[in-house]
Amino acid sequence: MSESISGKVAIIGVGITKFGELFNKSYNDLVVDAAFEAYEDSGINPEEIEAAWLGTYLPLGWGFDGTGGPSLAEALDLYPKPVSRVSNYCTTGMEAVRMAAMAVASGMHDVVLAVGAEKMREVPPRGSLVAQHIEKLHPMYSKGRTAPGSFAILATRYFEEYGATKEDLAEVAVKNHYHGSLNPRAHFRKEITKEQVLKAPPVTEPLGLYDCCPTTDGAAALILCKAGLAEKRFSKKDYVLIDGMGLSCATGYITTAFNPKFKFTGFEATQHASKQAYEQAGIENPLEEIDVAEVHDCFTITEILNYEDLGFVKKGEGPDFVKSGSSKLGGQLPVNTSGGLKSCGHPIGATGARVLGDLSNQLLGRCGDRQVKNAKKALGHTLGGPGAVSSVFILSKN
Amino acid sequence: MSESISGKVAIIGVGITKFGELFNKSYNDLVVDAAFEAYEDSGINPEEIEAAWLGTYLPLGWGFDGTGGPSLAEALDLYPKPVSRVSNYCTTGMEAVRMAAMAVASGMHDVVLAVGAEKMREVPPRGSLVAQHIEKLHPMYSKGRTAPGSFAILATRYFEEYGATKEDLAEVAVKNHYHGSLNPRAHFRKEITKEQVLKAPPVTEPLGLYDCCPTTDGAAALILCKAGLAEKRFSKKDYVLIDGMGLSCATGYITTAFNPKFKFTGFEATQHASKQAYEQAGIENPLEEIDVAEVHDCFTITEILNYEDLGFVKKGEGPDFVKSGSSKLGGQLPVNTSGGLKSCGHPIGATGARVLGDLSNQLLGRCGDRQVKNAKKALGHTLGGPGAVSSVFILSKN
Repeated sequence: MSESISGKVAIIGVGITKFGELFNKSYNDLVVDAAFEAYEDSGINPEEIEAAWLGTYLPLGWGFDGTGGPSLAEALDLYPKPVSRVSNYCTTGMEAVRMAAMAVASGMHDVVLAVGAEKMREVPPRGSLVAQHIEKLHPMYSKGRTAPGSFAILATRYFEEYGATKEDLAEVAVKNHYHGSLNPRAHFRKEITKEQVLKAPPVTEPLGLYDCCPTTDGAAALILCKAGLAEKRFSKKDYVLIDGMGLSCATGYITTAFNPKFKFTGFEATQHASKQAYEQAGIENPLEEIDVAEVHDCFTITEILNYEDLGFVKKGEGPDFVKSGSSKLGGQLPVNTSGGLKSCGHPIGATGARVLGDLSNQLLGRCGDRQVKNAKKALGHTLGGPGAVSSVFILSKN
Repeated sequence: MSESISGKVAIIGVGITKFGELFNKSYNDLVVDAAFEAYEDSGINPEEIEAAWLGTYLPLGWGFDGTGGPSLAEALDLYPKPVSRVSNYCTTGMEAVRMAAMAVASGMHDVVLAVGAEKMREVPPRGSLVAQHIEKLHPMYSKGRTAPGSFAILATRYFEEYGATKEDLAEVAVKNHYHGSLNPRAHFRKEITKEQVLKAPPVTEPLGLYDCCPTTDGAAALILCKAGLAEKRFSKKDYVLIDGMGLSCATGYITTAFNPKFKFTGFEATQHASKQAYEQAGIENPLEEIDVAEVHDCFTITEILNYEDLGFVKKGEGPDFVKSGSSKLGGQLPVNTSGGLKSCGHPIGATGARVLGDLSNQLLGRCGDRQVKNAKKALGHTLGGPGAVSSVFILSKN
């Protein structure tokens, strides 16, 4: 890499829909709601948007919407501007922001929009399309491994190597449901107890119902501009800067069949993506330097692995990090103060944009009961594939 | 737009597979063949690639491959580098190149790879998945309009307004099959006569079999670098520069139901995308300034509309442009010297990258029997959606 992205691109507007079972909202409704909230937040005229990126992961999995840029252009009447679509598993929403940020950094565009959206709770072919496909073709899923099944393998191995238990995983669920109870936009807003987690129906041992994030509808939008214009052109005194953004494809599937070096106690993709982002942002000690983080807690075990892969703590120390309260609001490095995927839900294409929107709100001091005091530097992380690709952003207040 | 991309990014390597019914090649085989040809052409060490972009349009439509960056990372062992996937209808392959070029122009990366690939001729769920989906959901296709049906509407209206005939369309088919006969990588390599075209089985009136491009497997790869490094670091004396790249989403579907202003005799997306690219490249008179072009001839009528939408000739003058031989090898502005989608075939994600690869080869004088003499400036165009999105590139020799 020749240059760091650091300081070149600003986030000047955020819009996040309510996440949940949104049967009363179409895909276009979600996109419009998120984008217009971002327009309003930024104070810009929508006509100033020069180009846009849409992140939707699997249009044919759940519905037809989001197959290409025209879905976003039509919903927001962006005609005749350039609108692209990106799709990269569960990093999709962050990828829309990453492409948008590179377009700004390239000088091609001064003001752009990135939207992540996915509507997963309804639409006719759900199940049939995905299931039909998965049964016949996928090298892993065709052998019966679902997402919970894949991550359960890591939990089992992690328990064996580091002596962790289901109770440690439950700490993550309890914390994130507590955070989610404070977030009006979360899918689940009820606190849960450790006992509830441990007594919940098993999904794939050792993961139970409360160890898994839900299936959710939602959208999020960010408006980005050339950093130098945030104050000069858009009169923003407070805004967010992108300090670093890393992406890594690594390790392929959760099996040694495709990757003999695969370790079942962490994700190389996260390790590499965070290394790239830290280098760009000049972060040497993430635990000391980062004030608030959103990480990919698709399952409780994943959040524990993330603490370690992101370098917050050493391998094997993840369970103590959550048990000590370090990752809870008020702790040393609050993680998933939005409620995370566990409580917010995980509309795949939306999640990465939602993460960066939530962190922007933290840096701007807008998070009310769940505000992290004096948050000046934030880390956002997504992981998909499963485990094959990870995206890490470092954000700061101007 | 704040700055032009012009002159910032060089194309230093091209790889294009044979296009056709490639039952003996997997998706990964195609990707590997294209990429390694591009590596060899560029003379770089594959390890120098810093990041990559994959363009595959519809993984769930035909196969599972290409859902995200990991498909490319796995096929080429790019671990742990950043690899993204873009999907934007029939502009998908160009979109991979556009994102890669912006990443270089942003300073984030010095040397990157863009690959377009689609395998459409086999794989189990073909038909069933797409058909099941289309029958139930698509606002146009669910009403029985296929791609040939949609473009036939434009042909019918164009005939009515400008007095064109099926014989005019046949001129495009005959020309592109002639060009394809000279291209060893084209799907179809046989010349055809006007009589054959006119007597061919009808598909959707007024379009017959030879008015439609085929369904094809293929892949293409480009290696891009910061322009200043092409000679300095990679010792290239001859290479290709990106002068401009435009993208426009416009007009939505081919109906006035969604867009009351839709005109059935051209595509606004193409008009806007070319305007953007011309501005960046400083092109004022495309017919005079461009030496060779590849345009989106998914159907013969589309090529005629493209001549007009791209500003080569005025509305209504497209038929004369092809009849006069102006767009044939040896003419004023040879169009689709590769054989175009008509003869090369149209593996959706591959096409845009193939177009830019073919034009690069023209600019470097490597096209043998189909070489355009002294080609110094080239135009590449794709159109998808149908008609909802268009991408235009202007390339030149250094």
